[in-house]
Amino acid sequence: MDIQFNMAAVLTKNFRLLSAFPRQCGVVSRFLSSERSQGTKEPQTIGFIGLGNMGGPMAKNLLTNGHKLLVNDVVSASVKELQNEGADVGDNPADIASKTSVIITMLPSSPNVSEVYLGKNGIIEAVQEGSLLIDSSTINPEVAKEVASKAEEKGATYLDAPVSGGVIASQNGTLSFLVGGSKTGFERAKPILECMGQNIFHCGETATGQAVKICNNLLLAISMIGTSEAMNLGQNLGLDPKLLAEVISKSTGRCWSSDLYNPCPGVLENVPSSNNYQGGFGTALMTKDLGLAQEAATGTKSATPLGSVAHQIYRIMCNRGYGHLDFSSAYKFIKEDE
Amino acid sequence: MDIQFNMAAVLTKNFRLLSAFPRQCGVVSRFLSSERSQGTKEPQTIGFIGLGNMGGPMAKNLLTNGHKLLVNDVVSASVKELQNEGADVGDNPADIASKTSVIITMLPSSPNVSEVYLGKNGIIEAVQEGSLLIDSSTINPEVAKEVASKAEEKGATYLDAPVSGGVIASQNGTLSFLVGGSKTGFERAKPILECMGQNIFHCGETATGQAVKICNNLLLAISMIGTSEAMNLGQNLGLDPKLLAEVISKSTGRCWSSDLYNPCPGVLENVPSSNNYQGGFGTALMTKDLGLAQEAATGTKSATPLGSVAHQIYRIMCNRGYGHLDFSSAYKFIKEDE
Amino acid sequence: MDIQFNMAAVLTKNFRLLSAFPRQCGVVSRFLSSERSQGTKEPQTIGFIGLGNMGGPMAKNLLTNGHKLLVNDVVSASVKELQNEGADVGDNPADIASKTSVIITMLPSSPNVSEVYLGKNGIIEAVQEGSLLIDSSTINPEVAKEVASKAEEKGATYLDAPVSGGVIASQNGTLSFLVGGSKTGFERAKPILECMGQNIFHCGETATGQAVKICNNLLLAISMIGTSEAMNLGQNLGLDPKLLAEVISKSTGRCWSSDLYNPCPGVLENVPSSNNYQGGFGTALMTKDLGLAQEAATGTKSATPLGSVAHQIYRIMCNRGYGHLDFSSAYKFIKEDE
Amino acid sequence: MDIQFNMAAVLTKNFRLLSAFPRQCGVVSRFLSSERSQGTKEPQTIGFIGLGNMGGPMAKNLLTNGHKLLVNDVVSASVKELQNEGADVGDNPADIASKTSVIITMLPSSPNVSEVYLGKNGIIEAVQEGSLLIDSSTINPEVAKEVASKAEEKGATYLDAPVSGGVIASQNGTLSFLVGGSKTGFERAKPILECMGQNIFHCGETATGQAVKICNNLLLAISMIGTSEAMNLGQNLGLDPKLLAEVISKSTGRCWSSDLYNPCPGVLENVPSSNNYQGGFGTALMTKDLGLAQEAATGTKSATPLGSVAHQIYRIMCNRGYGHLDFSSAYKFIKEDE
Repeated sequence: MDIQFNMAAVLTKNFRLLSAFPRQCGVVSRFLSSERSQGTKEPQTIGFIGLGNMGGPMAKNLLTNGHKLLVNDVVSASVKELQNEGADVGDNPADIASKTSVIITMLPSSPNVSEVYLGKNGIIEAVQEGSLLIDSSTINPEVAKEVASKAEEKGATYLDAPVSGGVIASQNGTLSFLVGGSKTGFERAKPILECMGQNIFHCGETATGQAVKICNNLLLAISMIGTSEAMNLGQNLGLDPKLLAEVISKSTGRCWSSDLYNPCPGVLENVPSSNNYQGGFGTALMTKDLGLAQEAATGTKSATPLGSVAHQIYRIMCNRGYGHLDFSSAYKFIKEDE
Repeated sequence: MDIQFNMAAVLTKNFRLLSAFPRQCGVVSRFLSSERSQGTKEPQTIGFIGLGNMGGPMAKNLLTNGHKLLVNDVVSASVKELQNEGADVGDNPADIASKTSVIITMLPSSPNVSEVYLGKNGIIEAVQEGSLLIDSSTINPEVAKEVASKAEEKGATYLDAPVSGGVIASQNGTLSFLVGGSKTGFERAKPILECMGQNIFHCGETATGQAVKICNNLLLAISMIGTSEAMNLGQNLGLDPKLLAEVISKSTGRCWSSDLYNPCPGVLENVPSSNNYQGGFGTALMTKDLGLAQEAATGTKSATPLGSVAHQIYRIMCNRGYGHLDFSSAYKFIKEDE
Repeated sequence: MDIQFNMAAVLTKNFRLLSAFPRQCGVVSRFLSSERSQGTKEPQTIGFIGLGNMGGPMAKNLLTNGHKLLVNDVVSASVKELQNEGADVGDNPADIASKTSVIITMLPSSPNVSEVYLGKNGIIEAVQEGSLLIDSSTINPEVAKEVASKAEEKGATYLDAPVSGGVIASQNGTLSFLVGGSKTGFERAKPILECMGQNIFHCGETATGQAVKICNNLLLAISMIGTSEAMNLGQNLGLDPKLLAEVISKSTGRCWSSDLYNPCPGVLENVPSSNNYQGGFGTALMTKDLGLAQEAATGTKSATPLGSVAHQIYRIMCNRGYGHLDFSSAYKFIKEDE
Repeated sequence: MDIQFNMAAVLTKNFRLLSAFPRQCGVVSRFLSSERSQGTKEPQTIGFIGLGNMGGPMAKNLLTNGHKLLVNDVVSASVKELQNEGADVGDNPADIASKTSVIITMLPSSPNVSEVYLGKNGIIEAVQEGSLLIDSSTINPEVAKEVASKAEEKGATYLDAPVSGGVIASQNGTLSFLVGGSKTGFERAKPILECMGQNIFHCGETATGQAVKICNNLLLAISMIGTSEAMNLGQNLGLDPKLLAEVISKSTGRCWSSDLYNPCPGVLENVPSSNNYQGGFGTALMTKDLGLAQEAATGTKSATPLGSVAHQIYRIMCNRGYGHLDFSSAYKFIKEDE
């Protein structure tokens, strides 16, 4: 579970701009065009592996929407919690794969995904022909491709479907899903994902969901540090931070980080910067995502000069104890004079 | 004249978001509160020094609005052009200062401003008590403070009022003005600036107009390179650039550079990237603005790690022949494989 | 073969400082202490896989020193050349592993090493108990650890032994070897490596040879770009480049890149910068090594801010056609005004 | 006084390499060629302004060598101390300029130099025709040029002569002087500077002393951070730091920062890193020098990508309380995990 920022709160409490979000359906409809969805909203039994801060609420939303669940997690307390809500429990990924034809995974990182899918007692070992496998973890696109290929050998369909939106969006069922994989698979997954999210994007073939996630978060990390630098410099030049944020939000420097998630305490309410950088999307998680971006950039020989420096800044922040603070604490790091 | 990007075209031709601009009045009104403006729309004689790509059209808009002009420029052809439109000509800045009580200057850089105001036959030498001096150049805030102080000694009011919006906005009278200086001075200048611009922001005391301009452009430069990195990496990972831009524009990575001025050719129409990076805001000018940001940062001991790297990237681009291309050519520089 | 710079020429032709190199034995002797070497100089049959620009001359030096060779390479012309010198030819890595108990590999990158050792018909498949496997490729330390572990399972000893010194040093038998692995293995390998190199360092356990190589090249890359920046700035400030290099070489800024390999054309003779950046250590290879450094840094959560920017600069240089020029062409890239 | 690192201790206590320093005379002799020095070692009265950590010991060394002094400083305790050693006291710079024909200044930064030379009661106001003015401060080359030009108008000779070597070298009279200005002036100054320093370099015309200083320190700052990154990464990869430093010192990554001033505690004795980063050359002073480098780079449109990032890293270190630690504390900053 690697995104936790409270976009839902942001959406509902202070800002109108994001009410533009329903228009996102435009993207989806481009892919749906006129044909009928092949997916179904009929209740079915769904396997769910990974019941952490993100996965737990997602699983509950599936139950709420009438689906039956067969769950698994290495943390028994998490399993217990879902059991109390009515879920059945599988022994391990292979057990679940042998009993259900739709499985969703929500795991911390690439090695976990490799193990749960390709390891001993893993999904691929027992997956049924025709099954739909949806991985919502944020991982290395190369790992996604490898798992997809193994799934295909068994006649199953794998989708990478990392999410955007964080813990609150997970709880509220307002996540965005960035889906890579076949169109048929996407159509089949869509009604299920809509139980957990608001915006379901089809990004292209296998691993494109991961690719979009990585690119968006790369730009997000850069914008956040850039906003922090501008807000700090402005104040050192004598500007009122609210006024500066207000003018920037109407000028060419405007970005999500300045408008809806300003890192300078007191500029906006209900954002982590105004709450000692508690909650939100942790610096350690952003650092992990930037590591994935660097791997992808090196692998494709893509230059990312600012992305590399952003990665290093977040790395240094982690080393200095900012790992658990929201990633907008870049402002605090840039400003700090002790 | 240091900003030339066609925000006006962008505004009118393809995007609705910026129709939010009228709301900017909110900022102004916060400063205006309930009291009556002390400025006047009555035609008066205005001095205008600096008639280049930006200053020329600004001066013409003053004429169009009924004002009389007394102009000066080192380029005689520029003076001639205004003369043909009905302007009178002053011998030098001091001459103009002795004959008018409102003077606007629009000059390329700090040394020019120092010379025109403080040099021999400069404005300060002959300025009348009570005069209003408005400098729309983008310069070092420290120079603005020095000139303001000399003006004050003579009983005159100096405002720094750099603009945002570029040549087309200058021609269309839709510039944004970022004004620093006394509130009284701002009120007096506002009706005049409204002849040339759409959004007139009061940013605070002397030099805050420059400070806001510098901070906005710092963030803009960073966002543009960040967007270029994300768009290039995404394509190298197999993504369709239009789809990537579309998803980003609805996600946390969104910024002006991705939404309204995307640097990847073909993603948006009517932006420089789709026109071989012609027109727009030149890389050399952005490099100059980032130099001002670095001076300001060093002077105030502010850390700007990404801003510094952005400065260096634009510097290297200038050295490699990108100086006259729009600053969104950062994408071309990042991508280039020959 | 990833290092090609002519350190040997540098050593012999112009500089005395490096005559300090024999003292390097000090390092070795610390590890050798008083005990007798377990290695032998007796002629034996050695397997050699990877006969490129680096591996070819290394193999020839083994023949010259009386050893018999059993060789293999994907390029048949390279195999033919060694055959003409008296080497026997193995069908594939497994074939060689089944017939010799000492094998040296010199391959371009991590995937090649994985394949030659762990792939079908690979070394590990057929390796004999008690064999000594020496990999002189520059690769990811994690891959080295994986191969070492597989070798150990078969009762064989694996050493990582990347080299420093380039093609000429390879031809002259004056390479430096940076060896990781057990002390016993090191002692056994030493007399063999001494046929090809002058300085044989034992760096510690498995993968430490790779680690030292990566750290040295990280610092080298940074110093080279730093020297380029200083030499270029100095000239732009009116300094004579030779004088600047001379003063720096006696001051706190001095480094190998400024003293022995100055990137500014004309400062030193017999270095690539004075020969249009031909020969030497290619920018593409340095970029590859910096990619390994970034992987290692991300994997160990180590901050490398300058290393990351250096990586990006070399990446951009590759994209702009500098890939085949010596890595000191960073100067040309920094300076370039077209 | 902007350099304090204990190069003298380094020289005398642990390293042989720098015994190469006497060879530096080679550089000087190139400029001296066969002609006789025009300078004199005869005792004379010398003005000395700026008696801080660096200037104080320098002044004492002049007394020790038989010269008479006429001194001035804003800190009366510093003046008192020199008075106790036998120096006479001048009322202000102008007073000293009216009474002596050789003046040395050692001041913290550019504005101080401007004031002492060009301000009210400044040197230029009262300087005698034919006087020799030697400024050992490290300042903006542009300021040096301005002062030189004013001195020339009065028929005096100005030399910029920043030093390298720090407080201990200042005390021991083993400083290096980097001198810019006319050859005649250099010859005249040389015997005087030799009372305070060991290596007297003539770098070229006015301001070239400052230029060399800036370029050397730019490279030094980059090398120090690069060494810190390599030493930290190496340890995280399992290397023994002493071994790593030893191999690097014999390889292509070697530099002054790795060999003689290693930033990793315990690798070398008698360097600040092994003394909690006390003593040496303060991070705040290095940050100041890098600010000068950035100004010079922006002014000459020179790209310094690593220099800019190094500047930012030192800036952030200052903001986090490292300002008074030796600049090799970059290692501590890079490593720190709390």
